Amino acid sequence: MPTVRVTRRAHFCSAHRIYRDDWSQEENREVFGDCSNPNWHGHNYILDVTVEGPVDPETGYVADLKVIKQVVKERVVDDVDHRNLNLEVPWLEGTIVSTENFAVAIWERIRGSLPSTVRLHRVFLQETPNNSVEYLGPEGD
Amino acid sequence: MPTVRVTRRAHFCSAHRIYRDDWSQEENREVFGDCSNPNWHGHNYILDVTVEGPVDPETGYVADLKVIKQVVKERVVDDVDHRNLNLEVPWLEGTIVSTENFAVAIWERIRGSLPSTVRLHRVFLQETPNNSVEYLGPEGD
Amino acid sequence: MPTVRVTRRAHFCSAHRIYRDDWSQEENREVFGDCSNPNWHGHNYILDVTVEGPVDPETGYVADLKVIKQVVKERVVDDVDHRNLNLEVPWLEGTIVSTENFAVAIWERIRGSLPSTVRLHRVFLQETPNNSVEYLGPEGD
Amino acid sequence: MPTVRVTRRAHFCSAHRIYRDDWSQEENREVFGDCSNPNWHGHNYILDVTVEGPVDPETGYVADLKVIKQVVKERVVDDVDHRNLNLEVPWLEGTIVSTENFAVAIWERIRGSLPSTVRLHRVFLQETPNNSVEYLGPEGD
Amino acid sequence: MPTVRVTRRAHFCSAHRIYRDDWSQEENREVFGDCSNPNWHGHNYILDVTVEGPVDPETGYVADLKVIKQVVKERVVDDVDHRNLNLEVPWLEGTIVSTENFAVAIWERIRGSLPSTVRLHRVFLQETPNNSVEYLGPEGD
Amino acid sequence: MPTVRVTRRAHFCSAHRIYRDDWSQEENREVFGDCSNPNWHGHNYILDVTVEGPVDPETGYVADLKVIKQVVKERVVDDVDHRNLNLEVPWLEGTIVSTENFAVAIWERIRGSLPSTVRLHRVFLQETPNNSVEYLGPEGD
Repeated sequence: MPTVRVTRRAHFCSAHRIYRDDWSQEENREVFGDCSNPNWHGHNYILDVTVEGPVDPETGYVADLKVIKQVVKERVVDDVDHRNLNLEVPWLEGTIVSTENFAVAIWERIRGSLPSTVRLHRVFLQETPNNSVEYLGPEGD
Repeated sequence: MPTVRVTRRAHFCSAHRIYRDDWSQEENREVFGDCSNPNWHGHNYILDVTVEGPVDPETGYVADLKVIKQVVKERVVDDVDHRNLNLEVPWLEGTIVSTENFAVAIWERIRGSLPSTVRLHRVFLQETPNNSVEYLGPEGD
Repeated sequence: MPTVRVTRRAHFCSAHRIYRDDWSQEENREVFGDCSNPNWHGHNYILDVTVEGPVDPETGYVADLKVIKQVVKERVVDDVDHRNLNLEVPWLEGTIVSTENFAVAIWERIRGSLPSTVRLHRVFLQETPNNSVEYLGPEGD
Repeated sequence: MPTVRVTRRAHFCSAHRIYRDDWSQEENREVFGDCSNPNWHGHNYILDVTVEGPVDPETGYVADLKVIKQVVKERVVDDVDHRNLNLEVPWLEGTIVSTENFAVAIWERIRGSLPSTVRLHRVFLQETPNNSVEYLGPEGD
Repeated sequence: MPTVRVTRRAHFCSAHRIYRDDWSQEENREVFGDCSNPNWHGHNYILDVTVEGPVDPETGYVADLKVIKQVVKERVVDDVDHRNLNLEVPWLEGTIVSTENFAVAIWERIRGSLPSTVRLHRVFLQETPNNSVEYLGPEGD
Repeated sequence: MPTVRVTRRAHFCSAHRIYRDDWSQEENREVFGDCSNPNWHGHNYILDVTVEGPVDPETGYVADLKVIKQVVKERVVDDVDHRNLNLEVPWLEGTIVSTENFAVAIWERIRGSLPSTVRLHRVFLQETPNNSVEYLGPEGD
């Protein structure tokens, strides 16, 4: 059967800041600029989760997108939507919440919960219309 | 000369929460839901400022959009981008930072700074792709 | 208090056709073209419902968008999403399901279910990225 | 019958510059900035033409959008797409091709060619994602 | 000469349902949910066809996009736009019209009709803003 | 450290034409159609520059996007925005300004100016919403 990639998009709104607490506020500002604002800022994130696998001849699906949607909801969106990424998300604790680190953490967060018939191919995370990242996993796909 | 409306779009990213400090956290959560999260959340706002006026026969412009852009930047964007709307914006102090109140405050913030040849027609503010408000001024246009 | 307009967006996917059953298939095709295809076609509709009202000084809201969202869901989306507009929607029975008639029917469908503090201002319905309609009510607003 | 507004969107790509030939290049640059570049620049314009009228009970249409599309194509798009707005469009001759003047000219260009059952309500013209104008006709609607 | 990928986008509107006629309606609903609705539903599909090849030094083109557009139109869009994918498209007969199977069928449908100087690289098919698939061919590219 | 791709988007507006001056106007029109119009046309280009590299454990960044933004601005946008690509851009001289050649030229223009810790992965250039190209470098990535 052909191998196809399937993408499910999710949206969420979070507060965060980029900073290191072992640096002074001046050092943080110098390296991270406005993104280190101690009073936080936030974003409407767009998350695309792409999985890859053979098309099931019985259903025509690589994966039931309702299942992928549910995994992304339970493992990611419910934890981060209308939350502070630095203060309220256990699986981001101790992480500088850059878009890069956030995407890698989302990868780790969902890869074990996907149906066994698919392989996680890509996590794409858009922070603003002009800034985005994609992570293809530890083997760079 | 014909009267035309001209719109300039701006983007900014801010943190906020919707709450009243004269209410308990439970009351806030009951009325405002996740939007009252004490640890904040945030958005990529889209702001459209529309002005209306006669086309200047000398330039073909209702207004120089560089001027409108500069007014929106100096009076609004510089104050709110990568900021906490509840804690860091003097002209929002004492306001519940709903999208409605925020749009009205932006109207008040810019109407006195526009070129005298135009009338502020509309402030459109999108908080998420699914939620937006528009304010047409105290006379409802 | 200032009067502000608040818009909630919804998405749904439906099948339909434009035709009159008192016309022959040839007549239908001549007037409605491909849109009259007896085997149906369909769209991803975008629906913007805009309500208008005074900002409540206690909450900063014209309306709780969760309520508007719920009204739009219960009165419209649940009835039309993944449905055939011609065959399965009681409140469209006997109607030629043009985007115009559909928007007017949505207006009638929701206006009685909105909070009493707001007035329905506009129903905007996009059928394709290039085709859309807006209805401002029987008094043309 | 209810009155509804119907919008048809068109796209085109054109070159232009904003300048007055009775001004020196320095004067043009001072007033119009980069937009006066003698070697031209260009845009992907988005044009929304909105007409208003009663819904025809026989068809459910305010207007056949194929007809509106054809009018916009013949009277506007065919003349401006992949053209130089300053040099090649007879109905823009002698006009400073600002977005304002262009929108007014498009209004004049199409209003006489529309079906008699509709009234031209609005010409919306987007020059860039951040800059747009709308014209509601000589009576400001 | 450098190898570059070129993408042409097309839009079309179709009705379909996801179901197996060797299953009962209950089984279909259990597996496919609302997508199996016997009365159909539909979508505004977005199709991106990406081809890859060396840049022709004589023209600067990998391929004339007018040619790619024409192939996509003749081999795909003309057959599916305003059609029922289950009932009216010979090259989808016997196929469960999931987005996955549809994308694979589009690949097969166009790869033999492309200019010999390019290789089909990817078929991307968006069913809704939140659901999409991509197919890179039988060798997974 | 994980390897992540980071994308920065930029916008610019330019005039151009596709033609060879060693061909007659008729030959140019035959091959390039309206794109060869001697009076120019233009576009709102969208440029996505994607770099790839390990996440710096000290900052959580693959690259400071302010730096990428600055490189793209200084090496590309400042040279082409509101300019004529055929007449005013030294690094496009002698090039047929197809989207393909333009993307390759942008690659060459920025790859030497990026931080040493990242590798340029992709230049994506959208000329119109329906036409775009991507270049992955001389080794096809």
